[in-house]
Order: sequence, then structure tokens, then C-alpha cells
Amino acid sequence: MAAKSKILVIGGTGYTGKFIVKASAEAGHPTFALVRESTLSHPEKSKLIESFKSSGVNVLYGDVTDHEGLVKAIKQVDVVISTLGGQQIDDQVKVIAAIKEAGNIKRFFPSEFGLDVDHHNAVEPAASFFNKKVKIRRAIEAEGIPYTYICSFGFAGYFLPTLGQENVTAPPRDKVVILGNGNVKGVYVTEEDVGTYTIKAVDDPRTLNKTLHLKPPANVLTFNELVSLWESKIKTTLQKIYVPEEQILKKIQESPFPANFFTALGHAMLVQDACTNNEIDPSVDVEASEIYPEVKYTTVDNYLNAFV
Amino acid sequence: MAAKSKILVIGGTGYTGKFIVKASAEAGHPTFALVRESTLSHPEKSKLIESFKSSGVNVLYGDVTDHEGLVKAIKQVDVVISTLGGQQIDDQVKVIAAIKEAGNIKRFFPSEFGLDVDHHNAVEPAASFFNKKVKIRRAIEAEGIPYTYICSFGFAGYFLPTLGQENVTAPPRDKVVILGNGNVKGVYVTEEDVGTYTIKAVDDPRTLNKTLHLKPPANVLTFNELVSLWESKIKTTLQKIYVPEEQILKKIQESPFPANFFTALGHAMLVQDACTNNEIDPSVDVEASEIYPEVKYTTVDNYLNAFV
Repeated sequence: MAAKSKILVIGGTGYTGKFIVKASAEAGHPTFALVRESTLSHPEKSKLIESFKSSGVNVLYGDVTDHEGLVKAIKQVDVVISTLGGQQIDDQVKVIAAIKEAGNIKRFFPSEFGLDVDHHNAVEPAASFFNKKVKIRRAIEAEGIPYTYICSFGFAGYFLPTLGQENVTAPPRDKVVILGNGNVKGVYVTEEDVGTYTIKAVDDPRTLNKTLHLKPPANVLTFNELVSLWESKIKTTLQKIYVPEEQILKKIQESPFPANFFTALGHAMLVQDACTNNEIDPSVDVEASEIYPEVKYTTVDNYLNAFV
Repeated sequence: MAAKSKILVIGGTGYTGKFIVKASAEAGHPTFALVRESTLSHPEKSKLIESFKSSGVNVLYGDVTDHEGLVKAIKQVDVVISTLGGQQIDDQVKVIAAIKEAGNIKRFFPSEFGLDVDHHNAVEPAASFFNKKVKIRRAIEAEGIPYTYICSFGFAGYFLPTLGQENVTAPPRDKVVILGNGNVKGVYVTEEDVGTYTIKAVDDPRTLNKTLHLKPPANVLTFNELVSLWESKIKTTLQKIYVPEEQILKKIQESPFPANFFTALGHAMLVQDACTNNEIDPSVDVEASEIYPEVKYTTVDNYLNAFV
């Protein structure tokens, strides 16, 4: 068996990044995390960096805006995974330029970890955001850099503990707000499983130049199904407040940034069917639970048990 | 008296833009709005475009990505006001390039209408967002384009109807969530007043190459003062739930984009004192209510009366 690829994670202290770093180290990949020096003054992030170090992760200090430092970091590894945040999507052109110059990268994972942006159907301002990711995809392809795009859809750990309700800290026990008619399918994957599947893909020829969809069958649920599942667990029928699409679009139009963006994202996922509006196309897509049946992913059903 | 400058608003159907277009037309400026053709299929926006037309606004169809079309639009006017949305801040480099080529623009207002981004103190991911606006400021200055930066801080119409509470449609009558200790000063300006002050600045030599702060004295209030004002109106004492900064920072770190961005923005404004952390510096700043005392701005006090 070939040696495991050396992996550099850029943005490793972020929401998604920390799960990728952890999964990489646990899977035995020599793991490098590029973090900004300023991160050390952030109490939560500096704790995280300490935990990286004690897991054997090589922490490199630097910034994507420092081209030479970035090239140097990239030259030490085989695979680059970007988990840069939503405000830094465009900055990935600098990562692409550095990968191009370094010339040694076998696979690049740009910061995705959401919807399949080539099939989003979203309204503004979410559309502009998704289009930034599309632009990065096209730039990678134009440069001929080997890639994998990870589409992980909804984060279970973010959506499920509140069933996507605002301003609450537990799933609802009396009433629930449902965007649209609730019959659109969403996909919920735990952050840990996003890490596991991403790292599985690193050395896998089946995911080379492909989009890896994370759609574990038990976790593809309409919002109404999600609510029913929760109701059956708490043995209560919730009052359902359906928000018609027209009202959602009006709210988007009448809110400033970033509130409009937040609502447009919910609209894309829960009304516009952005999670399941396209079938897996074998010429460009692979589905993670299908090619990695050995991964015992966390089901939505099991996840919700912790909140009963 | 000189003729009123011809104004082009880019992003005129957006949240801020529509108030600027309206104020421009009402003040008698020949007004042009550059809107994307796709906007016509959006029910709310197409209604807005009709209302622009009936106010005498010249609606031009185009896109900032079309350099030649943009230059052509810009050549018809004297002043360009960008109200492009939060996801299009970077796109303004294209507006700068077109202004540079057109060579006739007397004043450019980039899309600001928030905090003074040269003094933000925000944490990520809000920091990256504000830094994009900073970058646009520096690009304008480097090109020697005459400018005014409008800092309008909090939108009254967005914050006040709910006192910044999530998931409600009216100001609270039982309990209120307060970020930090509530003693940090915020500034709340109605969207109509943002339009009025912005258009006042267009032909004013006092605002040339300056940052115009909109800080009408009656509207500079701590959150605790805002709550007291509301309590006195409804003759009720609200239960106050203070969220310590540590908890806010933890929430930012533990939320994916865009939830983390949303919280970081609240943190910047209501905890980090981003509205009033810097004094007006006469060498670079002017304050709107001071130089335009004739504007009878809407006070927070009056605004809240509508909700009692």
C-alpha cells in the first residue's frame, strides 16, 4: 500500500477546518495546518492549536496573502485542503497560484462543504456567494489542477440541535417555523463525518476530478419528515407555522446584508431544493456513502436522540 | 447656483440603493439607475423599477462585469454612487476601472453605509468583510478618484422594529436579549435619512475626499438606553438577558458561515464599540447632522412611537 499523502489544511481553526484536521491526523496522514499568527491571541483558537499539536499536527504560521510562504508550505505536502471561511472564497485564487507555482500537488480541495454550487438556483445575495465558489472551480479546472469538490450540504451539528429555528438552544417542543411547504429534501451530515469522508477521498482515484456528494440515505429528509421524526421522539405534536415563499422573498428584499444573505441561504436549501435538485451524474459526481460503505455515519435519527 | 450633478446609482434596487435613488430623484438630480436585466424577473424588484421610472429615473440595464457598458453608463453622469450588496464589495474594482477610463467622474461613493471600516476592531469573519471595504477605499485613493465615504452605522428600519431581537416581528414586551453589558453606544439612522444625507453630500465641497459620519446626536444611544426608552414608552420593565462577550465569541467560533458572520457583526457593533470608538477627525471626517442642520432627521424616540 502506498504511503498516506501529506495533507495541508488552510483555514484549519475554522468551523469546518478543525474537523478536517482532526480526521486527517486520526487517519494517519502527516498533517499540516496553516494558521495566521493573529490566531494565537484568540482564546478559543489558541486552545484548538494546542490540541492540534498534541495530536501530532504540524502547525505552520502564515497567511494566504504571503505568496512565498504559501508556496513553501505547499511544497512540503501532497494534498491541499482549503477550509477558508465564507468571506475568503475569492482569496483562493492565491492558493491556486501558489499550487501552480509549487507544481507538486496531487489533489486540491477548495473550500466548499455546502451545496453543489453548479446547481444552486439561489436568489441574491446567496447567488453571488455561490457563484464565487463556481468561479474558483472554473479557475482550478482552467489551471489543470487535480481536484475534488466536497458537497456536504447541511451541517447536522448546526441545524439539528435547533431544527434550524432561530434564537433557541434546543429543538422546539411547542411550535416550529417551516420555510415553504416543508416538502423539499434537505441533507444533514455531521461535521465529524464531513471530516471522515473528505479524508477518505484524498488518496482515492474514484474521487479524482469529481464532485463528492455526501448524501447518506438515512439523512436525506424533507423538513416535514425531520419534524415528524422529532415529534415521534418527544411524543408531542408541534404547532407548524409555514412561511410561504413569497413572504421569504419579500423578507430577503427588505433586509440589509447579512440578514438577506442568511434568509436567501435558507430559501435555497429549504425551498429551492438546492440539496437534491440534481441527480448524481456518474461522469462528474460520486456519492460518499456508496463508495465508503465502511463508514458508519451518524444518522439524523440517532443524532436527535441526544436532545430528547 | 450650479446645475445639479447627474447621478448614477449602481445597485439601485437593493436595500440601501432604493433609498438613494429615491432621494436623488426627489432632490432634483438627473438620476440614473444601473440594474441587471435579470432583475426584471424578480417580482419585488420589477415593481421597484416601475416606481423608479414613474419618478423620472433613467433605468439602464447592465452589469458591473460588462466593462464597456459600464464605461458608457458612467460617461453620461457626473457622480457614481455604488450601493452594491455585501457579496459584491470586491466587484467594485470593476467600477473603479470604469470610472478611471471614463475620466469624467467628479465624485465616487463606494458601497459603505455601515461602520467606519478604517476603525472596526471586529473579529473574523466580520473583519475580512470590513477589510474588503478598506481595500476598495485604498484602491480609490490610489487611483486619485474624488470620493466620499458614507458611514451610516445601524439601519433604524432594520434594528429598531425588533430592537435587534431575532425571530420577532415587533419590539419585545417581556424580555430582551442584550449583547455584552449594553453600555456601548450604537447609532441608528433611518434609511430615508441615509438617502437624504448621501445626496446632500454629492455636490458639497466639504465632503470631498472625506468620510461622512451620520451620527445625529439624538440617535447615538447605548443599548441599555434604547431599552429604557422603549420601556418608558410601553410603561413596562423588561426582563434583561445579558450575553457575556466570552459567550458571543464562543458562538462565533462554533457556528458555520454565515451564522458566525452575523454574530460577529453584532459583536462589532454592540460590544466592540465599532460605532463610536473613534472621534470625528476634522482632517478626514465630517458629521452629517452638523453640516446639514436643515435636515429634520427622524429620531429614535419618534421612530419607536409607531410601535407602542
